[in-house]
Amino acid sequence: MIKEEKDFKEQLSLRGAEIEEIIKKYLPGEEDVPTSIVEAMNYSLLSGGKRLRPMLMQEMYKLFGGDGVGVERFMAAMEMIHTYSLVHDDLPAMDNDEYRRGRRTTWAVYGNAMGVLAGDALLNYAFETALQVLYNCGTVEDFQRVRSALSVLSFNAGIYGMIGGQVADMEAENSQEALGNEQILYVHTHKTGALIKASMLIGAILAGAPDSYRADIAKCAMDIGTAFQIQDDILDVVGDSAEMGKPVGSDEANGKQTYVTINGMEKSVAEVNRLSGEALEIIQSFPGDHSFLEMLVQYLIERRS
Amino acid sequence: MIKEEKDFKEQLSLRGAEIEEIIKKYLPGEEDVPTSIVEAMNYSLLSGGKRLRPMLMQEMYKLFGGDGVGVERFMAAMEMIHTYSLVHDDLPAMDNDEYRRGRRTTWAVYGNAMGVLAGDALLNYAFETALQVLYNCGTVEDFQRVRSALSVLSFNAGIYGMIGGQVADMEAENSQEALGNEQILYVHTHKTGALIKASMLIGAILAGAPDSYRADIAKCAMDIGTAFQIQDDILDVVGDSAEMGKPVGSDEANGKQTYVTINGMEKSVAEVNRLSGEALEIIQSFPGDHSFLEMLVQYLIERRS
Repeated sequence: MIKEEKDFKEQLSLRGAEIEEIIKKYLPGEEDVPTSIVEAMNYSLLSGGKRLRPMLMQEMYKLFGGDGVGVERFMAAMEMIHTYSLVHDDLPAMDNDEYRRGRRTTWAVYGNAMGVLAGDALLNYAFETALQVLYNCGTVEDFQRVRSALSVLSFNAGIYGMIGGQVADMEAENSQEALGNEQILYVHTHKTGALIKASMLIGAILAGAPDSYRADIAKCAMDIGTAFQIQDDILDVVGDSAEMGKPVGSDEANGKQTYVTINGMEKSVAEVNRLSGEALEIIQSFPGDHSFLEMLVQYLIERRS
Repeated sequence: MIKEEKDFKEQLSLRGAEIEEIIKKYLPGEEDVPTSIVEAMNYSLLSGGKRLRPMLMQEMYKLFGGDGVGVERFMAAMEMIHTYSLVHDDLPAMDNDEYRRGRRTTWAVYGNAMGVLAGDALLNYAFETALQVLYNCGTVEDFQRVRSALSVLSFNAGIYGMIGGQVADMEAENSQEALGNEQILYVHTHKTGALIKASMLIGAILAGAPDSYRADIAKCAMDIGTAFQIQDDILDVVGDSAEMGKPVGSDEANGKQTYVTINGMEKSVAEVNRLSGEALEIIQSFPGDHSFLEMLVQYLIERRS
């Protein structure tokens, strides 16, 4: 491993640990509430995830000069929303997964009904957590930023964002017809891209980034989300199953239509490179020291597992 | 039917129709989103419900002199949250109900996975809808009211309110041990009481009711919610199954522990009367013409089906 890569991995793990502590600060209290639901929520939240969304949010917040603590609640809320989507995705009614990253899924441990309720509780608690920031607004400017962050969060988590992507993904998987790039890219930009976009935008908004950056940040986030997903499709064909901890070739075996099955390998690799290059170019136009963000994005996109 | 009762029923149906129009105003738009999810959400929302929660909210808003339109979005949001809770309650993973009020449930029409996603989408869209009111705040006072309403909404819908009640209800049903009144009343005040409390409080808060009314409004709402549920338990024993559209005696047949099985019929009827009397006494201390609210509360509690 070259030194720069080693330094980045160390920094990544330090940041992850820091974010873990922030998330723990905002776990639900256990007073006047059935213990079981809090247990199921915490089991789901503290699952050793990489915390990429809050990490992107925090990094954007720092780049644009943020120094308050208001971003912490939004970081925790974002991870709660990401987590609820996984908890519901794993349900027998959805993907019926008993394991995720080698660990039993929430419904597998606490039962099917509690899986539904724990997901609901996490989504609701995300808003409870983020809404409290409205009580820390000292100025009209603060209020406007928090209002905007709340609006971005709720919009991108719902049918115009992540949920829309999940529905489209489900429909694509059940579809007997040939899919076009438009449909595949809708799923990628919504199911994965929407929360990445919201994370980057919220960090920038809370730090008071000028509105003129908004379109670029959104574009950058969509590039990252799309490239991440196409890379997923690529790795399913050429990845190392030992490194990835899951079998390769499962998309083809399942007859799943992906960006790669539609466009071929060569074009897919070229598209990942194009998107990655575009995202990095946009990042270079941001203020501050963006070396960590650059490496994070490269790490996300150009991973081999 | 005496004239007063007839007038009330007419007013009730007029109010219901008015609220139906308000809810329709805030249905999700269909642009850039899979049609199927919007269809499933609208099917769930437009199910001929009685709209009691938004009705209580609107009535409190009027009593305390509210004249803005900000309450409408909260009325729609409240009904979305109530609706999502029914959609998820009906899932095979939960109560496994294919019919509700003689109509097929959401998952029975759109499938199990869509049932999960439609519920998630409604909960998220409720916050999207209510959060927009932050953009209609002209004064600091407006902002403080809306912030407080959002906080009350999210708190009472989550683990410290409705979801907490649902979990406790599920655990009580599965419990082999004898339940005490404390556990039964926890379920009643949370599963049903929390959203009634939130509805009444939000109406009053948005209208600018003095804080001194808060405790009384909360108490009144809890009385209504609890009396409503004990009446449910009573009707399960003495109700007319034709009038109710469901069999009587199902709690006993299912071995379900209720307020009536624990305390007996006489004490249960006395408790409903006490709670109802207390709620009405509190309502009489509210400003404005509260005759409709009084009749609404009596109608809710003293119903025979």
